[in-house]
Amino acid sequence: MSSKNLLENIRVILVEPAGTLNVGSVSRVMKNMGLSNLVLVNPKCDYLSPEALQMSVHADDVLLNAKIVSNLSQALEGVTRAIATTVRSRSIPTILESPRKALPWLLANKIETALIFGPEERGLSNQELNYAQRYVYIQANPDYPSLNLAQAVAICAYELYQIVFDDEDVKFNQDCENVASLDLLDSYYQHLETTLLNIGYLYSHTAKARMEKLRRLFNKSSLSPEEVNILRGILSQIEWYGQQKSK
Amino acid sequence: MSSKNLLENIRVILVEPAGTLNVGSVSRVMKNMGLSNLVLVNPKCDYLSPEALQMSVHADDVLLNAKIVSNLSQALEGVTRAIATTVRSRSIPTILESPRKALPWLLANKIETALIFGPEERGLSNQELNYAQRYVYIQANPDYPSLNLAQAVAICAYELYQIVFDDEDVKFNQDCENVASLDLLDSYYQHLETTLLNIGYLYSHTAKARMEKLRRLFNKSSLSPEEVNILRGILSQIEWYGQQKSK
Repeated sequence: MSSKNLLENIRVILVEPAGTLNVGSVSRVMKNMGLSNLVLVNPKCDYLSPEALQMSVHADDVLLNAKIVSNLSQALEGVTRAIATTVRSRSIPTILESPRKALPWLLANKIETALIFGPEERGLSNQELNYAQRYVYIQANPDYPSLNLAQAVAICAYELYQIVFDDEDVKFNQDCENVASLDLLDSYYQHLETTLLNIGYLYSHTAKARMEKLRRLFNKSSLSPEEVNILRGILSQIEWYGQQKSK
Repeated sequence: MSSKNLLENIRVILVEPAGTLNVGSVSRVMKNMGLSNLVLVNPKCDYLSPEALQMSVHADDVLLNAKIVSNLSQALEGVTRAIATTVRSRSIPTILESPRKALPWLLANKIETALIFGPEERGLSNQELNYAQRYVYIQANPDYPSLNLAQAVAICAYELYQIVFDDEDVKFNQDCENVASLDLLDSYYQHLETTLLNIGYLYSHTAKARMEKLRRLFNKSSLSPEEVNILRGILSQIEWYGQQKSK
């Protein structure tokens, strides 16, 4: 089973969402992060309104394919593993985990899993929380911990996508592999030293130490062959300039 | 210095934001994640409209205290480290890093840092990208990678908060401490441009494009203040050399 399919097995369940714009935003970020399976429990807004579709931009397919049910039990039909999102609360006698810790559990072969979000105003009730086996809270500023629904979905969806595609952590742009050879660099450093001696910036007794610093400076850049040409072009121009001036 | 202060040193810079609701959402999630320092560059929307304030909910203080400037250079005044967010692009010959990898670099004692986001429709231009020293992209579904601005801010702000308050194992990078401020770099680039115009390497109509390449070249080095002094010393010597020759 491919990584992509692992994400397709996850249902995003919104319980009684009231914000049209929120539902639109949720569908967009779901598609951004490879999720497609949206379930709305007893929605309190027109989730197919023009505003919702506008917020979803190119994820209107997620919105149009959303499954509408009347209670959480129906939303969870066929689901083996469910995680509920919550804010920290004394009323829930259970462990609250971070998204990074708990969400990998939803990525499993051949089983349906679900991530449940509560209504904007009240969050999930204790009864609703009891449908889940694990609980995620997003750690935030204690002075203002209440996240917008779509932002909470964004963070969880982002975490899921990074878990699946983690091996692609750092991307090098194609051009970045285009690094000048050591020979080419060495010719540049010799050219630089000659020019700097000519213009009186370097003296023979200081040249070695100063050139070491300059090599280190330019080496940090991982210069491309084109960049070496630019720098050598400047050196040639300095020499030409000196000759013109002395005429 | 407390962890909280590390977050307060980070400026969130939005370049030409056009969406009123987006700016409101950004301020909310910033406060959720302990960030308070919002800078808007030439905003294209009424960022204090009732809709924006409604989206910000209890983060209207972030919105009301936002600093408005007319260009990115002003937004970055006093900033030592800047990271720009971008989508994958062939036009940028540099390393794109994940938020998790790059963002810890913004959490440093006693220096101002910045995280830059582009306009909703076009993202940051190459010229704008050149103001930053590192580049973050949020890995996403290749079929629809374009994230809503406020969602992109949410993900980065969340990562920053988790670094400070969750992952005690993250080591702040001390090696990078000694990096020239953007102000210092900017003076160097101006000096370089003047000198290259004087010696006839640049012409006024080619200067802009060529200077972009040179900025990128030197930005890759994360120059130290000492190295900037060396490079400026060479420029002064070129000028002196020209004057001597013309005597």
